[in-house]
Amino acid sequence: MEYFKKEILELDPYIPGFQPVGNDYIKLNTNENPFPPSPKVLDSVRKYVNRELNLYPDPLCSGLLEEAAKFFKVKSGNIMAGNGSDEVISLIFRACINKGDTVAVTFPTYSLYKVLAEISGASVKEYFLNEQTRIPGAMIFSKAGLIILSSPNAPTGCAFDKRDIEKLCESNRKSLIVIDEAYADFAEENYLYLFKKYNNVIITRSMSKSFSLAGMRLGFAVSRKKNIDVLLKVKDSYNVNRLGAQAGRAAFRDRKYFDRTVRAIKANRAYLARNLEKQGYSCFPSQANFIFAKPPCGAAKLTGFLKKKKILIRHFKSGWLSGYVRVSVGNRKEIGRFLSESRKINKTEG
Amino acid sequence: MEYFKKEILELDPYIPGFQPVGNDYIKLNTNENPFPPSPKVLDSVRKYVNRELNLYPDPLCSGLLEEAAKFFKVKSGNIMAGNGSDEVISLIFRACINKGDTVAVTFPTYSLYKVLAEISGASVKEYFLNEQTRIPGAMIFSKAGLIILSSPNAPTGCAFDKRDIEKLCESNRKSLIVIDEAYADFAEENYLYLFKKYNNVIITRSMSKSFSLAGMRLGFAVSRKKNIDVLLKVKDSYNVNRLGAQAGRAAFRDRKYFDRTVRAIKANRAYLARNLEKQGYSCFPSQANFIFAKPPCGAAKLTGFLKKKKILIRHFKSGWLSGYVRVSVGNRKEIGRFLSESRKINKTEG
Repeated sequence: MEYFKKEILELDPYIPGFQPVGNDYIKLNTNENPFPPSPKVLDSVRKYVNRELNLYPDPLCSGLLEEAAKFFKVKSGNIMAGNGSDEVISLIFRACINKGDTVAVTFPTYSLYKVLAEISGASVKEYFLNEQTRIPGAMIFSKAGLIILSSPNAPTGCAFDKRDIEKLCESNRKSLIVIDEAYADFAEENYLYLFKKYNNVIITRSMSKSFSLAGMRLGFAVSRKKNIDVLLKVKDSYNVNRLGAQAGRAAFRDRKYFDRTVRAIKANRAYLARNLEKQGYSCFPSQANFIFAKPPCGAAKLTGFLKKKKILIRHFKSGWLSGYVRVSVGNRKEIGRFLSESRKINKTEG
Repeated sequence: MEYFKKEILELDPYIPGFQPVGNDYIKLNTNENPFPPSPKVLDSVRKYVNRELNLYPDPLCSGLLEEAAKFFKVKSGNIMAGNGSDEVISLIFRACINKGDTVAVTFPTYSLYKVLAEISGASVKEYFLNEQTRIPGAMIFSKAGLIILSSPNAPTGCAFDKRDIEKLCESNRKSLIVIDEAYADFAEENYLYLFKKYNNVIITRSMSKSFSLAGMRLGFAVSRKKNIDVLLKVKDSYNVNRLGAQAGRAAFRDRKYFDRTVRAIKANRAYLARNLEKQGYSCFPSQANFIFAKPPCGAAKLTGFLKKKKILIRHFKSGWLSGYVRVSVGNRKEIGRFLSESRKINKTEG
């Protein structure tokens, strides 16, 4: 085994949320969109299930990028498509991290960043968030080689303050700054414009949440063309499969469906938050498609109790997070089932 | 740009074969299978184009691995699925290469290995092949951290001698040895069994060629469970998309279709070789789904001439390869068109 890197052998892998086989679970544990993909997307993908699957995909995903460019209102040369935004983020690490470099992240945040840093042999500097919407001063002046943050952040759902993000960009002109906007479509504002203002900013986006396409694996990097060209050198030639590219194209085109489902999720989020508070939970104000909340009965107890009822939510065990649960914003029926089971062990309601 | 790694900024990216948009080309340039995927595969994938595409795929690809295990006659714990074997190979590099390590490859071979080594900051030791089926003695005793070879090799199509491969494994017990068998289904024999004999061997396989699924991106690593477990730590959680996994499952199950199409390609390969020789080409004996051959009229001239006729073949420009062209084994109609155009500028036929 000595042929593997020491840091890989010692690594604790990223553990994704439980993916049950079959349909008998209510899945509120991995922030999927409760709505199916647009019917237009399904029709369009079905048409592409044809004899041409024997051919490699277009390495540049030109058709997909054209639609993405319209949606993001940027040029297609400012975008790279990936096999999920996880792949995009992983490519960024491969393009910029040397062993011994420093990666600055917040705590809490999406735990994949730390895993990727460790795979690259980087040291991770974690900045503890006191207020979930504010970037700590020490991080703003960190000057780490790579600074990566998620806004809205996981698992709290809070978006960072605009002034802080701008200050961070202003103070780290030589760092690569990555803003992971996987949840930005559910937020009041987003930071896509920053890549135009700062050469060294890459925004990542995902179609897994707001486009209901987690199963198709589509994510994007948006940045200056110069940066995109470097990332293209590192990516596998055919990283997005034919049906994935087609699903993405069709989904970007059906703007109406996107708007309608995103609006519904935001309304459901407000409904869920209101009812969680009625049951005595304390909730972070969410800008994402999930709510991070502290249940009165205890987080581990609630998670275990619901699992027996075939309702999955997410419970993280590190630090103060362990008092909280992360509940994805399902549809009204799923939220109803969740709330009614939760009520049974959180009896503070009047 | 100083935030990117120096070696990435300096890197010449891997350049994939030209993928035209539309159907008006005869594509003999990227070793795709001329047959469509099995009708059973298309039917099965169509059924999976449903509302569940909003859910993440199974991170372990359990259903796919079960079928792969039956096909390869190994346990599913000995297999990892990837987004094409390119991704699998890239994960192996990430798991084992530190900056400054040495990667041993043959020349010629699949040029991606060199690109991946450079991305990782490794130095590449290239061993020049004199006989295309024999591994040079110096490589057999190389002791590089990672030794990677392709058998059948690209772009020559020649498989390596069994005794040489075994000797290589025997002499490099502390190296990681990767045998890329993307084309092995077209060969007389394969080296899958070696992972059982040697702890430090990983075999990679692809569904792009022999299963007609280049558009779906499916590849595998087959090795000791211990090695697979390390690779799993490095891979993105959801690297294989839902429809890809389903296509792979269905393709492994339709063994009859696989056998029939592979047999047809081997017969077409023999037909193509015979006719190339009649036209005065000198051909390497191919164990793959392409033929590497030296056209009497010159390789660049032939490639340019055919492109104007909307027939694509591959021409590599490095070293002695530049005298040759690589022609994928198409169907009989495609081969017929290719041969008849080729005859026009290679007039040595009697």
